[in-house]
Amino acid sequence: MSPKITTELLKQLRQVMKSPKYVQEPVQAYIVPSGDAHQSEYIAPCDCRRAFISGFDGSAGTAIVTEQHAAMWTDGRYFLQAAHQMDNNWTLMKMGLKDTPTQEDWLVSVLPEGSKVGVDPFIIPADQWKRMSKALRSAGHDLVPVKENLIDTIWTDCPQRPCKPLITLDLSYTGLSWRDKIVALRSKMAERKVLWFVVTALDEVAWLFNLRGSDVEYNPVFFAYAVIGMNTIRLFIDGDRMMDPAVREHLQLDSTLEPEFKIQVMPYGSILSELQAVGAGLSPKEKVWLSDKASYALTEAIPKVYRYLTPYTPICIAKAVKNASETEGMRRAHIKDAVALCELFNWLEKEVPKGTVTEIIAADKAEEFRSQQKDFVELSFATISSTGPNGAIIHYKPVPETNRTLSVNEIYLLDSGAQYKDGTTDVTRTVHFGTPSAYEKECFTYVLKGHIAVSAAIFPNGTKGHLLDSFARSALWDCGLDYLHGTGHGVGSFLNVHEGPCGISYKTFADEPLEAGMIVSDEPGYYEDGSFGIRIENVVLVIPAETKYNFKNRGSLTFEPLTLVPIQTKMIDVNLLTQKECNWVNDYHQKCREVIGTELERQGRHEALQWLIRETEPLIRIQ
Amino acid sequence: MSPKITTELLKQLRQVMKSPKYVQEPVQAYIVPSGDAHQSEYIAPCDCRRAFISGFDGSAGTAIVTEQHAAMWTDGRYFLQAAHQMDNNWTLMKMGLKDTPTQEDWLVSVLPEGSKVGVDPFIIPADQWKRMSKALRSAGHDLVPVKENLIDTIWTDCPQRPCKPLITLDLSYTGLSWRDKIVALRSKMAERKVLWFVVTALDEVAWLFNLRGSDVEYNPVFFAYAVIGMNTIRLFIDGDRMMDPAVREHLQLDSTLEPEFKIQVMPYGSILSELQAVGAGLSPKEKVWLSDKASYALTEAIPKVYRYLTPYTPICIAKAVKNASETEGMRRAHIKDAVALCELFNWLEKEVPKGTVTEIIAADKAEEFRSQQKDFVELSFATISSTGPNGAIIHYKPVPETNRTLSVNEIYLLDSGAQYKDGTTDVTRTVHFGTPSAYEKECFTYVLKGHIAVSAAIFPNGTKGHLLDSFARSALWDCGLDYLHGTGHGVGSFLNVHEGPCGISYKTFADEPLEAGMIVSDEPGYYEDGSFGIRIENVVLVIPAETKYNFKNRGSLTFEPLTLVPIQTKMIDVNLLTQKECNWVNDYHQKCREVIGTELERQGRHEALQWLIRETEPLIRIQ
Repeated sequence: MSPKITTELLKQLRQVMKSPKYVQEPVQAYIVPSGDAHQSEYIAPCDCRRAFISGFDGSAGTAIVTEQHAAMWTDGRYFLQAAHQMDNNWTLMKMGLKDTPTQEDWLVSVLPEGSKVGVDPFIIPADQWKRMSKALRSAGHDLVPVKENLIDTIWTDCPQRPCKPLITLDLSYTGLSWRDKIVALRSKMAERKVLWFVVTALDEVAWLFNLRGSDVEYNPVFFAYAVIGMNTIRLFIDGDRMMDPAVREHLQLDSTLEPEFKIQVMPYGSILSELQAVGAGLSPKEKVWLSDKASYALTEAIPKVYRYLTPYTPICIAKAVKNASETEGMRRAHIKDAVALCELFNWLEKEVPKGTVTEIIAADKAEEFRSQQKDFVELSFATISSTGPNGAIIHYKPVPETNRTLSVNEIYLLDSGAQYKDGTTDVTRTVHFGTPSAYEKECFTYVLKGHIAVSAAIFPNGTKGHLLDSFARSALWDCGLDYLHGTGHGVGSFLNVHEGPCGISYKTFADEPLEAGMIVSDEPGYYEDGSFGIRIENVVLVIPAETKYNFKNRGSLTFEPLTLVPIQTKMIDVNLLTQKECNWVNDYHQKCREVIGTELERQGRHEALQWLIRETEPLIRIQ
Repeated sequence: MSPKITTELLKQLRQVMKSPKYVQEPVQAYIVPSGDAHQSEYIAPCDCRRAFISGFDGSAGTAIVTEQHAAMWTDGRYFLQAAHQMDNNWTLMKMGLKDTPTQEDWLVSVLPEGSKVGVDPFIIPADQWKRMSKALRSAGHDLVPVKENLIDTIWTDCPQRPCKPLITLDLSYTGLSWRDKIVALRSKMAERKVLWFVVTALDEVAWLFNLRGSDVEYNPVFFAYAVIGMNTIRLFIDGDRMMDPAVREHLQLDSTLEPEFKIQVMPYGSILSELQAVGAGLSPKEKVWLSDKASYALTEAIPKVYRYLTPYTPICIAKAVKNASETEGMRRAHIKDAVALCELFNWLEKEVPKGTVTEIIAADKAEEFRSQQKDFVELSFATISSTGPNGAIIHYKPVPETNRTLSVNEIYLLDSGAQYKDGTTDVTRTVHFGTPSAYEKECFTYVLKGHIAVSAAIFPNGTKGHLLDSFARSALWDCGLDYLHGTGHGVGSFLNVHEGPCGISYKTFADEPLEAGMIVSDEPGYYEDGSFGIRIENVVLVIPAETKYNFKNRGSLTFEPLTLVPIQTKMIDVNLLTQKECNWVNDYHQKCREVIGTELERQGRHEALQWLIRETEPLIRIQ
């Protein structure tokens, strides 16, 4: 990996930072955040502005360029990668280390008095703007919105914003028509006494209208905004996608409809002016609902007294609770996914000993098997296919420079998933193709105990996911071990593989209480730098639990695994399991046999079926 | 309990709300919060202003009086009590119920346009002022500080502010001189680049100067503030307490000292003007450190740009980590406390069957046995002595109207503790003097499993207490049971029985990470309304744990019980315990026998020793 030479680019950027063509007054610093205008986790190539200006293309990082300096803030996952990808023009700011200044402190230390700091108001979330603006102002500087993105002005070969065809999802997939979703949304709006709701997150637009796209890799979303009033629906979207008869039919664009369900289609770029018009027309006590993560530009369009901001929107919360059709779809998707993985592991077992299977080949093979399944659309994230020491790099993605060959001497960790039209999958299995060491088995078994502790947990209705996180760690903690990531994240239904508002993490974040129908991952791990990584991940559905008693009539919840892929028993030290844990593994494998076995049979995949049967032999614990 | 008649008082209050003698402009509403000027949990009689004006004397509640209305906000623990204690002039606002308006919303709904809402700026914490002021302003009203407390103007027989003699604590108790504490504080101040630190919490003043008082019942504190500069120490305290030769000697008031350790003693009431003088003398970049819970009055004394506010002060954090002398003192205090409880339970076992022991008699007897122990000062909180259905009232305190007689047919719950000069105790035991039912034993055993799960937990250095809370609930959750309070609180060393900044609770609060030397309670419970209450509480010390591995060299922690009082084995369903849990109980009882047995022997308390030996017989679990 050689660094990107950025001398010329930085020179150009510093010129436009002073050019009256783009800025009212020269800016002495320009901030280039990671995100797009929708605060997406995964972004399109045209939004990779920070990577363009610096060369550093990790998923998290903020660049700040001043007249003299160029600095990049990123976290521990990316210190090495950023150092490799950036040239000497850049200073790496290692977040999380004690001596690393915050962006604000650094700006204050390098800027001349009374400086202007520019940022694209569409890219910076309102809450972040507020914090930074306050810090700069108290030091005598100003944060100013620069309407035209300055990177775009110098990015001559910037890819076009994607504008791919849409997929319409019918009731059998969504369980609820977009009309009914609008009705439910309006009733939430009425409850909170707001007149308008602005949909800014791409997965929320997609979910609301029962549409999917492919503008962003791995996330079946499309670039759009929506503004919902009590009697109006405005969809801001570009391209001739609205010319597609299936889409027109789906959205009933050509039907005579009650006016409150008539969708007005508007250009993507007109959201700001339309929202400003909404803002200008408000009377006292009329409110507009926005996520507090919405961009500064859109938030500012609504005068402060009319704003109603919440960390999670009602769509985010409704989307998280899957209905019966969505749940059934997720079940089907996970069955197909398990079939693909049974094929894969059976194939790996035969091929790995030959010494010809690399991490990339294994990842490609996983995709090949998945793509044979019905309604397969694409992967749901970049496959983490890692063996030996690469397994300890939590966000590893094999590239030619790091690509390792799988062998009978190393642990192999595969974290992968797919988008099917009926659901999204995400599963991690850790396996050994030879004989694991006692220590490897010991660590694997602690991770498994943590996985089971969460999966089998029974907890009161209304419990927040972060209260379950320690269950996943307890067995590791007992031996002085741990892992430095959360235990689970929300999973979309043929949508983003990471979604809010629930999750299982030690980090205190504003997670919403778990309720039946929510779907999260359960993925504890253990990583030994330089030698191996272990993770066991199922996607699990929150379901009601039957309990002996029922305190205050609150009811209880538990999890049902949707992922049905065998957990390699060769890696388990059975003597470290309790009888209850042992039964859990056996019950789980029995269910894999029944459900996935039936499907393998149906698809005529006899060799994979044999593999499944071998891999699901019950554990026997010597008392 | 008959309600307090408040018609005349409210009339008087409404008069002074308009009187130019007290208010610059009439106020249309006056807020009477619960607290004192130090945001104490326990308050002195002269600070019980809300109880005076309303009759309601629970520990939590806020009164608001307008020209037409009088309303009281309190939480679920006090709905019944408040309803009984208040007359018809008052509307009870049941916090936590869906239809109950917030104070701000209610004020907005009842006030005429452009109203002024008054409050004593010394009583309202700055963060609360900020929230309420913002809400009122956005509705066109104003929150205004009323310097003279309006309740005090009509409270003709208001008790005097207590001004009791001080106790000096020497190094054998504190382990650190006040000079060394000042040096450590100044080094924290230098780290954060602040020039002044304002000590507003009473227990922080007491801890810093190694002094104790008795101005507030149960809390060995005294009314004082302190302002620490890099070269000055100012102590704001009233009365002739500073004339006491022991105190003068302790504080070296008459010695020739380096100027930076010379304590300037000033009147308690001069804190505001002195702080204003400090505020007026600051240059740019000079900062003053205050707790963000400090009163609005003191916070406002420092212009905003000079304020440095944190949720926990460096004193609060230093105080929480007990040094070797404090830890040894706490151990000694808990041994004495256990001796007293062995005597008590032995006595109860003999007396209860006679039918003459009431909850109040039992509580008094507990105090009597404690007072026989060396260095006993007072109780550390009002004893919760409750039998049968009273046990389900979590904050129960027996009064003649509710006083129940202990019997062989009901569960008895005793939550009690004391202040000794060497430490503070807090212990709950739940016992049966006859034969408990299978259901009672089942519930008790789940609570015990939760208690053990926390007490025996091993967790990484730096873990926050809230991550351990679910361990205490897991066994209850499995059966659909739970309890509606946190699992533990910090405990002071001959100081407040509840102290920050650590604790074990499902409530997300900004708790500081646990570290070796911190002391918390471990007190899960189960409560069945109308029939019984169960709680098992030990005070536990955070200690380093030995583990097989040591991930990232972080080190691990666990707890050591300081409380050494037998847990009634009669209440345990041994078959519900794992072997590990069974061993924990037996090891714990073995330690009680050794440590408390030796002390009972030394004190010649032979009958109690026999009781201890009986009660600590090992459990035997049938495999």
